[in-house]
Amino acid sequence: MVGAGPGDPDLITLKGLKVLKSADIILYDALVNTDIFAYLSRFVEKIYVGKRAAKHRFSQGEINQMLVAHALSGAHVVRLKGGDPFVFGRGHEELQYARQFGIPVQVIPGLSSATSLSTLQETPLTHRGLSEGFWVLTASKQEGAFSQDLDLAMQSGATLVILMGMRRLEKIVLRFEAAGRGDTPVMVVQNGSLPGERKAVAPMSRILASVKEQRIGTPAIIVAGAVVRLHPEWIDQWAYDAFPNQPDYA
Amino acid sequence: MVGAGPGDPDLITLKGLKVLKSADIILYDALVNTDIFAYLSRFVEKIYVGKRAAKHRFSQGEINQMLVAHALSGAHVVRLKGGDPFVFGRGHEELQYARQFGIPVQVIPGLSSATSLSTLQETPLTHRGLSEGFWVLTASKQEGAFSQDLDLAMQSGATLVILMGMRRLEKIVLRFEAAGRGDTPVMVVQNGSLPGERKAVAPMSRILASVKEQRIGTPAIIVAGAVVRLHPEWIDQWAYDAFPNQPDYA
Repeated sequence: MVGAGPGDPDLITLKGLKVLKSADIILYDALVNTDIFAYLSRFVEKIYVGKRAAKHRFSQGEINQMLVAHALSGAHVVRLKGGDPFVFGRGHEELQYARQFGIPVQVIPGLSSATSLSTLQETPLTHRGLSEGFWVLTASKQEGAFSQDLDLAMQSGATLVILMGMRRLEKIVLRFEAAGRGDTPVMVVQNGSLPGERKAVAPMSRILASVKEQRIGTPAIIVAGAVVRLHPEWIDQWAYDAFPNQPDYA
Repeated sequence: MVGAGPGDPDLITLKGLKVLKSADIILYDALVNTDIFAYLSRFVEKIYVGKRAAKHRFSQGEINQMLVAHALSGAHVVRLKGGDPFVFGRGHEELQYARQFGIPVQVIPGLSSATSLSTLQETPLTHRGLSEGFWVLTASKQEGAFSQDLDLAMQSGATLVILMGMRRLEKIVLRFEAAGRGDTPVMVVQNGSLPGERKAVAPMSRILASVKEQRIGTPAIIVAGAVVRLHPEWIDQWAYDAFPNQPDYA
């Protein structure tokens, strides 16, 4: 089981690529950039099991069964998943299923979009004096539980990273405004690390307009917190106050 | 600026390795595994700027100045940092310093130990029914602020990932016990992904004994939350109750 990283095919790990090169069959997701297959022999079988396939919607159960059936036939199967298979990836469910059949599985981590996309945006999730931690959550949870987590995160001052949250962006904005935090810097990135990358950087109370202007859809990540003031676009467009916490290099 | 990942030299990204191969000079940290240099020509100059150097303690200011001096001399300088340079890595400070001199800088993310070590331990930071988010923090903060963040995280049910927290492990345990959460599963990993890896997996109220038994020192990561019940050692040693939340694959 290999994590492919956030999209750029060169953001896979060397270890992941070595394993891919030894595969007989690769089962891959919608979030995997198929450009990565250019590194492989064209004789490797590649099977798309994205849940968003046009003609057929693969269930988790079907994917599990395919993995096991191919492995039991003696093939070296690589399950290739976008990002990191164990960070919002349901990788453990597949691992657990395969192990029930005595199939040996090795897990190779990938760059999670939760951390790597901010780095590519040159926006550190942590920075001395601005944030000493970050909280990654999804908006896929029930409404109430998500709102509670959001409130706790706002109290902490941790950088907030929200995956799969675009449909709730308006509610997130309202929540920040209700807490008097409409000026929180926020960054939204779609297709991070890919040629079609789109981004919006603005204070929370202005982000919906920016997202619309940049025509950003799903999936995208939302990063909110003081560290977004270090994003080059924030500095260009929104930095009316002095540069925060310039460290003293004396 | 390149992230080297958590330790295993093959856990660098392909993109990071390509950049390393094009370097004239590499400035690297204490957390970088020098086995990675086996992939490079021996004519590449490698300079150790770890802050824990025996004879000299490099300050951040000195590192910044070395980076700039080499770049201005016309060399292609790679700053190689353990993990991801922007996740608790102070990478942005170096980037900002170099840009002041008009030096073009590209940032290539690396696998952060905050996410990748859990994946290597086959313990997902998120798992349906157990956790829908994770909070990464360091114990380097002032005592009071750290304790507050810990309390907020405990309220949320998010998986907690603590970096640089070993010296406060006893206090963390007391905090969990005071909140009636001494049974929270916790995993501590030192030298994750490396041959000298050591780990302890136990309920919070028993973790200090396990850490001592396994002779775990710093630096290590601490992961606390229900997801640690999925760790193979938890299942072997501590899973007195039924396996939690077995998904229904019907």
